[in-house]
Amino acid sequence: MSESILSRAISHSPSTSPATWREALESAKGVPESFELLKVLVFKPRTAKNVTPVPVIVIAREETETSSAALGKKLNLKDLRLATEDLIVEFFGVNKDAISPLSLSAATFPKVLTVLDGSLASASGPVAVHANSDKETVFLHGQEIVTYIQSLETAETKITEVDFAALKADATANAPLKEAAPPQAKTATVAKKEDAKIEGAVQIAVGIQKELDFPGWYTNVLIKSDMLDYYSVSGCYILKPWSYSIWEAIQAWFDAKIKEMGVENAYFPLFVSAKVLEKEKDHVEGFAPEVAWVTRAGNTDLEEPIAIRPTSETVMYPYYAKWIQSHRDLPFRLNQWNSVVRWEFKNPQPFLRTREFLWQEGHTAHLTKEGAGEEVLQILDLYRRVYEELLAVPVIPGIKSEKEKFAGGLYTTTIEGFIPTTGRGIQAGTSHCLGQNFSKMFNIVVEDPNAGTGESSSKIFVWQNSWGLSTRTIGVMVMVHGDNKGLVLPPRVASIQVVIVPCGVTAKTSDELRKRIPDECDALAKKLKKAGIKARADLREGYTPGYKFNDWELKGVPIRLEIGPADLDKEQTLSVRRDTGEKAPIKMANVVEDVGKLLETIQTDMFQKAKATYESRIKIVYDWKDFVPTLDNKCVVIMPWCEVEACEDDIKERSGKPALGEQVDERAPSAGAKSLAFPLDQSKYPKIEAGKTKCPACGRDAKRWMLFGRSY
Amino acid sequence: MSESILSRAISHSPSTSPATWREALESAKGVPESFELLKVLVFKPRTAKNVTPVPVIVIAREETETSSAALGKKLNLKDLRLATEDLIVEFFGVNKDAISPLSLSAATFPKVLTVLDGSLASASGPVAVHANSDKETVFLHGQEIVTYIQSLETAETKITEVDFAALKADATANAPLKEAAPPQAKTATVAKKEDAKIEGAVQIAVGIQKELDFPGWYTNVLIKSDMLDYYSVSGCYILKPWSYSIWEAIQAWFDAKIKEMGVENAYFPLFVSAKVLEKEKDHVEGFAPEVAWVTRAGNTDLEEPIAIRPTSETVMYPYYAKWIQSHRDLPFRLNQWNSVVRWEFKNPQPFLRTREFLWQEGHTAHLTKEGAGEEVLQILDLYRRVYEELLAVPVIPGIKSEKEKFAGGLYTTTIEGFIPTTGRGIQAGTSHCLGQNFSKMFNIVVEDPNAGTGESSSKIFVWQNSWGLSTRTIGVMVMVHGDNKGLVLPPRVASIQVVIVPCGVTAKTSDELRKRIPDECDALAKKLKKAGIKARADLREGYTPGYKFNDWELKGVPIRLEIGPADLDKEQTLSVRRDTGEKAPIKMANVVEDVGKLLETIQTDMFQKAKATYESRIKIVYDWKDFVPTLDNKCVVIMPWCEVEACEDDIKERSGKPALGEQVDERAPSAGAKSLAFPLDQSKYPKIEAGKTKCPACGRDAKRWMLFGRSY
Repeated sequence: MSESILSRAISHSPSTSPATWREALESAKGVPESFELLKVLVFKPRTAKNVTPVPVIVIAREETETSSAALGKKLNLKDLRLATEDLIVEFFGVNKDAISPLSLSAATFPKVLTVLDGSLASASGPVAVHANSDKETVFLHGQEIVTYIQSLETAETKITEVDFAALKADATANAPLKEAAPPQAKTATVAKKEDAKIEGAVQIAVGIQKELDFPGWYTNVLIKSDMLDYYSVSGCYILKPWSYSIWEAIQAWFDAKIKEMGVENAYFPLFVSAKVLEKEKDHVEGFAPEVAWVTRAGNTDLEEPIAIRPTSETVMYPYYAKWIQSHRDLPFRLNQWNSVVRWEFKNPQPFLRTREFLWQEGHTAHLTKEGAGEEVLQILDLYRRVYEELLAVPVIPGIKSEKEKFAGGLYTTTIEGFIPTTGRGIQAGTSHCLGQNFSKMFNIVVEDPNAGTGESSSKIFVWQNSWGLSTRTIGVMVMVHGDNKGLVLPPRVASIQVVIVPCGVTAKTSDELRKRIPDECDALAKKLKKAGIKARADLREGYTPGYKFNDWELKGVPIRLEIGPADLDKEQTLSVRRDTGEKAPIKMANVVEDVGKLLETIQTDMFQKAKATYESRIKIVYDWKDFVPTLDNKCVVIMPWCEVEACEDDIKERSGKPALGEQVDERAPSAGAKSLAFPLDQSKYPKIEAGKTKCPACGRDAKRWMLFGRSY
Repeated sequence: MSESILSRAISHSPSTSPATWREALESAKGVPESFELLKVLVFKPRTAKNVTPVPVIVIAREETETSSAALGKKLNLKDLRLATEDLIVEFFGVNKDAISPLSLSAATFPKVLTVLDGSLASASGPVAVHANSDKETVFLHGQEIVTYIQSLETAETKITEVDFAALKADATANAPLKEAAPPQAKTATVAKKEDAKIEGAVQIAVGIQKELDFPGWYTNVLIKSDMLDYYSVSGCYILKPWSYSIWEAIQAWFDAKIKEMGVENAYFPLFVSAKVLEKEKDHVEGFAPEVAWVTRAGNTDLEEPIAIRPTSETVMYPYYAKWIQSHRDLPFRLNQWNSVVRWEFKNPQPFLRTREFLWQEGHTAHLTKEGAGEEVLQILDLYRRVYEELLAVPVIPGIKSEKEKFAGGLYTTTIEGFIPTTGRGIQAGTSHCLGQNFSKMFNIVVEDPNAGTGESSSKIFVWQNSWGLSTRTIGVMVMVHGDNKGLVLPPRVASIQVVIVPCGVTAKTSDELRKRIPDECDALAKKLKKAGIKARADLREGYTPGYKFNDWELKGVPIRLEIGPADLDKEQTLSVRRDTGEKAPIKMANVVEDVGKLLETIQTDMFQKAKATYESRIKIVYDWKDFVPTLDNKCVVIMPWCEVEACEDDIKERSGKPALGEQVDERAPSAGAKSLAFPLDQSKYPKIEAGKTKCPACGRDAKRWMLFGRSY
């Protein structure tokens, strides 16, 4: 039967999550107007190491909440965790993006525990089922799927049918931290999109739990909140206004700050000739594998291929050599806001690793090492403030190890962020001192102003810095603050800080009130805007308040204000915080002041909460045996370190193998821990005693405290 | 002898002007530390058409002013004009960038009139001489050059030696409108650059007269005013802060205006797949010859080449099809600030025609043609205001002919500028109505909100616009306002509006005054800045006031304020306008108010002056015989036109042959006249009577008034 089913499969672009699967299907041919996706999850219970695990395969409707905690409890299995890719391939012969009931066969069925969603049989519309491939889908009715699985049952091995709705009610205590927004039927939405407003609500739910499928949650939040769309060139994404406006807020703040410092903006070309690009050896080695080359214009092959800048050191510095003629020209500071291209072949991820990204790159030249060093830290502190004061994301300023520093530079300072859900560190912005390496390559020299006036004039190669902050900022912010309802935007970067929704209108509401309520919402929006608060009244007709609530929650607007008939009577509005869900009435008499204060409170609270989380996940490690368990526990390690590169390589190697069966986020580049940064503030940690404090990894003498972690 | 001289030539990158020649030499090997360039100009006197002209070749030192008017008078030759490239090649066998005394031979010398700068023999330092090539230079002493030319003299043909300095004194009355800044010795500047401040003054002079060599003047002004530098990839230029800040001023103004209209900013990828790019046939035909293709990343050939966007219609519209689902989503308006790449093979020119340029591109969708059309004009008016209100450059709003409209669009509106020095029109910004052409290609549809609720729903393809304004704005502004002292910046886009220069300090000045004068300058700058005026005190030490005057005049700063001992006594400052050179004292008591008013006056006066010039150069033509002479007279033509494309082609053909010997600006793309625009305001011109008013070019019935002109 499996073959006859497979013959009905349609082809589409590859999918790696429910969101991309749906998207791929929507642009493919021969797809029904409405359908739901079949959810197939594979879990592995905790078992003793020498015991072969029995994976649990859960086959459920898309909207069914399949809490692993509740399921584990019911099945009496300990610590159900999503299985690794390896385990899935080992048992089913397909990867996690291809698995489906059709992956079960007479041979595999007995080796696993098959859990069937009791409601599946009742799915009457078409259900999309992977045809043993992430690029092929077959549409079946719920009952067809059930029948196929039942055909595999033997006397020894039966299906376990579970009523997940009942299970949920029982198991609230064991549920994960947060539940997804209440799922609703997803069928029939396409056909009714134009006028079916309530049904529309399901389109805007995130649909994937942050804790269960973080990469899936992330891309889903980005797409559904209107931040981003996928693009037809792989690894490139569209920044829609909802995310681009955050970049504009960052630009406005940072641009003003660097201009105060005397930095000027300029624009250098997108292209760089091979000859120039390859001038600095270490530098080009760092970037060459990712450089995109233009070789043709129209129908004409270019005489020489031309590179698209991966960064602009070699674009700019030949001209710095020309323009900087005297020590009076120093410090010389230029910045540009542009895009750069790094054609990575690793798995791309929106904002975090993309083939083209937006950033600013500052390039400065100084007379002395001290002058350069001072600026490096000034800029690093501005980067810290972008994260902490605008994005409410805590970061740790520090210095990179020799291995992790910028290719061709002298030293790299960094701010290191942290993604609690995965326990991974993330490089959030870097400010490099390039030393004199580039000035020697490009011959950027001035006369020494302090040299004697004797015959032999003395040339000084300038000291250079470069520093960059990219749209990665936005991705980090989403990952840190977002929840199962969607984005949570810090007020200072939200392009809408307050949304005002008219409520409480029923069939019985008088015509006068029907008009007055939206009028009041509109007036309030105008009043707030006049006071500099970015407010919008959502007066869309044909949408319920509930739809609007969900919509703006998904988009992360910091405050919702509701105005209904009772509020008018009491001369108040009900405020709802996006970050905490907290509700409180606000008197209209004080509304401007109170809303302003509440925005500040939200900004502060979001930062403090994220900071407390980050701090709670930094663990001091003195003993190697604690190193990997700390990482596995979604924490980063701070430890006294020897600063030997071989030790760093060794740490990466030794921490790179996840525990068998542990979920691996395949889009994360490194399973092994890397050194993240020597925190600038070393005084927070116990004093390192020369000759006494040892490196836990290799036993050599430790020198400074270093943060280690799995990272993006 | 010529051969032995040529054997000493050194090679360098090609040069097209004194500025680029010097630049090429400075980066070549084996070049003396200091040198001057030999100036070689070829003029053609006006002669009857059937007479073979005798070209005049002038061989002079770089710093010698070689006024053609004065020379013509002395030689008793009428209307000496720079010879065309054709004429130079015809007579000397080399082009204008390669010509030198070495191009004279026993064969050619008798056919021309050779004018020798009397001061050349006294040039003791090395003089750079083109070795019959724009890429090869030989260094000779002045006397060597003279000796070589003298060796060519015959009994019939002698050298004409001219004392240009004496000539200048005699001929002031006949000199061109404006003289270049007083030339000074250019030798020995490289070696002394660090401390020789007065000599430095020559580095900052424009050095080429706007009226004599406009393209040379243009690039020289851009480079010497620090607006721009040439780049190692041909056709790409570096926008330095002095020009980029003007772009930032335009961005800030326009961005705020379109946001008021409800346009949001976004960012779409740089890349577009071949398949998508080629979807709209007319459109791709318009751009395909100029598209740059990425075919390789690192060492890996891409499966499919990927284009760099030449414009983003096809990048964006597949997503518009997805995002626009309902008439409630309309109007849908996005804009992006980005760079695009059009790999033109024509001669590039900074800001006007470059392979990469910065712009904004707005892309909007509307329910009705009327809605779209209204926005097209709103945007066009914003473009007009950018030119007229910010850049003080007059433009004429109009509509392009069918032939000149945007590839794939319905109609194109444009603002047309005018460059008086060349008499050429220039397309300054375009706002296109795309109609439904793209929405049909990309299937961007909504339900008709006005259709009945019957079974057969009715789809509407949306009406689309796209509109773009680029850094060409900056080039037009430079060309219109600049003079022989350099840039002239309109106050509203100047990043420094007022420069304050301490003056009058001599050897006898007291220590107290020596300190007080710069302190007062500094205090005044602070006071003006506090009032929102962009002021800077130029307190650089080791530079004379004269050097500073030249420097800021070259950079076009609208107002210079001088403070010297006498000014302190009178509690005043002396103001000098950059646009007119007018000087007037300003009482310190009213300085903020008066400087503010003066900036406004300058802004207004610059616009009015440019507008009067433009208007005086628009000539009504009813008779074909007046058409080409009007163009030749550096004017544009307005005439009643038939709107027949064949007529347009014919006009271009018939006006495309310049008079023999007339100087042709080789960097200008078209010698023949193109239609520029139907002015929106047709009422300025006499009524066109149907069936009576005829097209002067073809005699068909005229329909509307059309501007024709040579153009960029």
